[in-house]
Amino acid sequence: MNQQLKKIILSTFVLLFASQLSAQDFYNTQTRDKWLKIAKDNQPKLVEKLKYPVSLADITADASAFQGYKTTKGKDIQTLYTTSLKKQSGNVIDFGEHLTGYFTFSLQTLNSTADAPVRLKFTFGEVPSEVSVPFDPYTGGLSRAWLQDEVVTVTEFPATITIPRRLAFRYVKIEVLGSSPYFDFVLNDCFIKATTSVSSLPAPLASTTPEIFSKIDKVALNTLKECMQTVFEDGPKRDRRLWIGDVVLESQANMYSFKEHTLTKRCLYLLAGLAQEDGFLYSNVFETPVPHAQEKSPFLFDYSLLYNVALKEYLGATGDKETAEDLWPVAKRQMDNISKYLDKDGVFNAAQAAKDGWWLFVDWNDKLDRQASLQGIMIYSMKETLALAKMIGKEKEVNQLSGLITKMSNGAKTKLFEKKLGLFVSGASHQVSYASQSWLVLAGVLKDNENQKVLANLQKYNEAVKPGAPYMYHYYVQALINCGLTNDAKSIVETYWGGMVNKGADTFWEVYDPTNEKLSPYGFYPMNSYCHAWSCTATYFIRKYPNIFQKQ
Amino acid sequence: MNQQLKKIILSTFVLLFASQLSAQDFYNTQTRDKWLKIAKDNQPKLVEKLKYPVSLADITADASAFQGYKTTKGKDIQTLYTTSLKKQSGNVIDFGEHLTGYFTFSLQTLNSTADAPVRLKFTFGEVPSEVSVPFDPYTGGLSRAWLQDEVVTVTEFPATITIPRRLAFRYVKIEVLGSSPYFDFVLNDCFIKATTSVSSLPAPLASTTPEIFSKIDKVALNTLKECMQTVFEDGPKRDRRLWIGDVVLESQANMYSFKEHTLTKRCLYLLAGLAQEDGFLYSNVFETPVPHAQEKSPFLFDYSLLYNVALKEYLGATGDKETAEDLWPVAKRQMDNISKYLDKDGVFNAAQAAKDGWWLFVDWNDKLDRQASLQGIMIYSMKETLALAKMIGKEKEVNQLSGLITKMSNGAKTKLFEKKLGLFVSGASHQVSYASQSWLVLAGVLKDNENQKVLANLQKYNEAVKPGAPYMYHYYVQALINCGLTNDAKSIVETYWGGMVNKGADTFWEVYDPTNEKLSPYGFYPMNSYCHAWSCTATYFIRKYPNIFQKQ
Repeated sequence: MNQQLKKIILSTFVLLFASQLSAQDFYNTQTRDKWLKIAKDNQPKLVEKLKYPVSLADITADASAFQGYKTTKGKDIQTLYTTSLKKQSGNVIDFGEHLTGYFTFSLQTLNSTADAPVRLKFTFGEVPSEVSVPFDPYTGGLSRAWLQDEVVTVTEFPATITIPRRLAFRYVKIEVLGSSPYFDFVLNDCFIKATTSVSSLPAPLASTTPEIFSKIDKVALNTLKECMQTVFEDGPKRDRRLWIGDVVLESQANMYSFKEHTLTKRCLYLLAGLAQEDGFLYSNVFETPVPHAQEKSPFLFDYSLLYNVALKEYLGATGDKETAEDLWPVAKRQMDNISKYLDKDGVFNAAQAAKDGWWLFVDWNDKLDRQASLQGIMIYSMKETLALAKMIGKEKEVNQLSGLITKMSNGAKTKLFEKKLGLFVSGASHQVSYASQSWLVLAGVLKDNENQKVLANLQKYNEAVKPGAPYMYHYYVQALINCGLTNDAKSIVETYWGGMVNKGADTFWEVYDPTNEKLSPYGFYPMNSYCHAWSCTATYFIRKYPNIFQKQ
Repeated sequence: MNQQLKKIILSTFVLLFASQLSAQDFYNTQTRDKWLKIAKDNQPKLVEKLKYPVSLADITADASAFQGYKTTKGKDIQTLYTTSLKKQSGNVIDFGEHLTGYFTFSLQTLNSTADAPVRLKFTFGEVPSEVSVPFDPYTGGLSRAWLQDEVVTVTEFPATITIPRRLAFRYVKIEVLGSSPYFDFVLNDCFIKATTSVSSLPAPLASTTPEIFSKIDKVALNTLKECMQTVFEDGPKRDRRLWIGDVVLESQANMYSFKEHTLTKRCLYLLAGLAQEDGFLYSNVFETPVPHAQEKSPFLFDYSLLYNVALKEYLGATGDKETAEDLWPVAKRQMDNISKYLDKDGVFNAAQAAKDGWWLFVDWNDKLDRQASLQGIMIYSMKETLALAKMIGKEKEVNQLSGLITKMSNGAKTKLFEKKLGLFVSGASHQVSYASQSWLVLAGVLKDNENQKVLANLQKYNEAVKPGAPYMYHYYVQALINCGLTNDAKSIVETYWGGMVNKGADTFWEVYDPTNEKLSPYGFYPMNSYCHAWSCTATYFIRKYPNIFQKQ
């Protein structure tokens, strides 16, 4: 064989090996299968309860009520069951609480024989506006099919029919779209087989707890309970997925309330088993028909980092080192992204990352510049990861982190902190926002007393971009608590989460702007999820910090 | 005991007995149970076949086409299965033939992960207009729910979903009412599990049969096959009941084609077992959830009489004396109504009967005066009943009939026949109609040559009220044949049923007026049944009278 030929053969082998390497799974199939099996083995059996309506509801247009609809108790539910449904078309049933599950109704004829099918429309609402506002012509950006209106043809009497899709609601509007003039009928029964994986009540709050925090806690627990199904869902109405950002908050709220730690374990394993081939995590996964991730979805950078926080907190709450060690390679791998878009000063080049297709979420807020927030999340997640590593003796495996933390902290202090304002700024426009301050305070870039000053300055800075949703409010409250501004934290929980309670919330909402009740990231406010995981953390604060929230 | 007390006790007993008698069932429970068991034992096992669409259909507005919609073959069906359904919203699938059964479809994603449910609307049509005309706002008189549009939420991919209600259609329009902008999908499969109780094909027609009658026969057989399910239904789309008027015609068409006589037996027993308490028959019965009649429905006089014709014809076709004898008490009982509204001349007081709540049907035609037709139906049914009695040696049990036939025939001749016109007239307005002439010809009131003259005169009498639907056309054709006007009979079948064929009928329609294609008894023409039992009898004529219809 001549040298030329040898060279060609060798280079061909190298190329083949390299292409194999690039297509190789970061975690091998065996590991993934094991992780997915553990996820499956830890799937909770749902607790099912039959729940019946408590009354009819009168919903009327009222500009002073939440979203313009005022709800008062209507007629006794027996009226529904015993009076012609034709004469009650448009009536709204009230189940008295937010429930998630499968809706069943029964029809029977009234004094004559059914000679034709009946066409009914059921509209299920988490809040009164959902059963009041017309859905069509539809203006929203997400699938119209999330809206919970179902048209059912009943061909036989008596009938007992279960609507196939799982629903999440408190209110049900019933409309008769078609019926025979030759017979009448009643809806003589209806119920929901409500499901949750929560099996027990948490400890009661201290008797000294102010009423508003008791109320907030109750609504927060309901929110969490409803979202806890066979995974921690983001919302039982929409979109019912396991998202890292939500599970981080839900699992921590769960630690201080229901303590269903196997659900956390299941979710951590599910996310790991379904990670990208390169080892980085998908932001969310689906359970059915088989567990799978959203292919071709953009890589959500901040969520991938926060996975490590959830794993560390899980270990802290349970002492389950086996799980932490088993999933450590996943946590460790997420750190490999940290340095990809750092400039020479250790500052995150958010614009370039976004341009390259990374999704930088931070908050639902179109106006928000995300650079400084991400800088904070990156430092924060490195510190948490380092803490996790220490708990399981893996520091050496991530010995790059200390240097990176220092470099990025310096970068934040020198490039993102505007001394004359005493505030962090973000992006080319030097934007000041609650998100940037909160995350860089949580990251501990400055000293404690400096952090306190930052958050005090923030509150005086009227132009600061405010949080867009409870998710960001959570991290702001946590930042306030961390730097000792407990009264401010208390006040935010009281006014923000308490504001929802005072507006009639049974569960906390995905998006809540006290000044714009119809705000929606989806172009149509009934599309919002009105029972949303990331909004449940008021109970976490109230229960984790009894000295702040459970004393008068 | 003194006499006074004895009297009181006795009269109390008499009253009790009388009240018991009046509440007594004409047929006892044991008999009814036996009849219903025989009906059940003779329930056919449905023949199920999976049928797939043959192509897409292009349906366009065209004033010259039937009901204003022209259908041409559209794209290959593979286009549907392989192209984004979003991009095909509104497309119509063509199954190539009228089918009855359960529709199943499958969806799968196209190149990405489903992140939201999908909302689809399927509209099923027997004729093109049904998938073209908006159903709402609904203007019809019967239940809107008969219209076959179903809204389905698909929450999981891949999905295979069967629409719960049974459907009858050739065309299916598919609309995407809601979907996520983040993924696409295809309808990768659909089919109907088509059902009928017809298990074999009838003998082919003679090779000499003119093409138009071959075509008419095929469409008529399809109509009958589609209506033959676990009873002879009136229409598989609407209203799917067993009506006496329809079964009389269907069972006779069946005798000359599919010969599924056990279905006839089942239907005769079902009607008998569910008769009114006073022994008279309900006009129609339902099979599910348990066999039952339409309580409080008006008594349909003509249908009750025609039951006897079906029983007699069944006996003639099968020689099944056991059934005829078993059901003879029912036939005999129907005759007890004949004399209730006769005047001294033996003429039926239709106005009074109708006023008292009897339903006199005869035909779908608001303008029709029904007196003379009923006079004919009564005489005809008595003659048929007498023939039945003779076949099973029961003449003595109905020895009143001969006298009544004579009396009513004389009444018809002297009071309803207008000599100067040479036509029968009906009611106070002396109305001339095809219905009156047909039924009084079938009743054989006049001599054969006189009957022929009547029908000849009728054709020249432009003001005569014409038949409203194929049901009445059937009896008119039979009358023409009976009195030897076979060319006229042939011409009616060719032009009336042939007219539907030429307008694209796959099955024959409940109502057909050549001059008004949108005629409907229900206020909205898509509500019409376009595959209707009583319209199937063209095959009966073509096959029973080969000399008329199967020769060039």
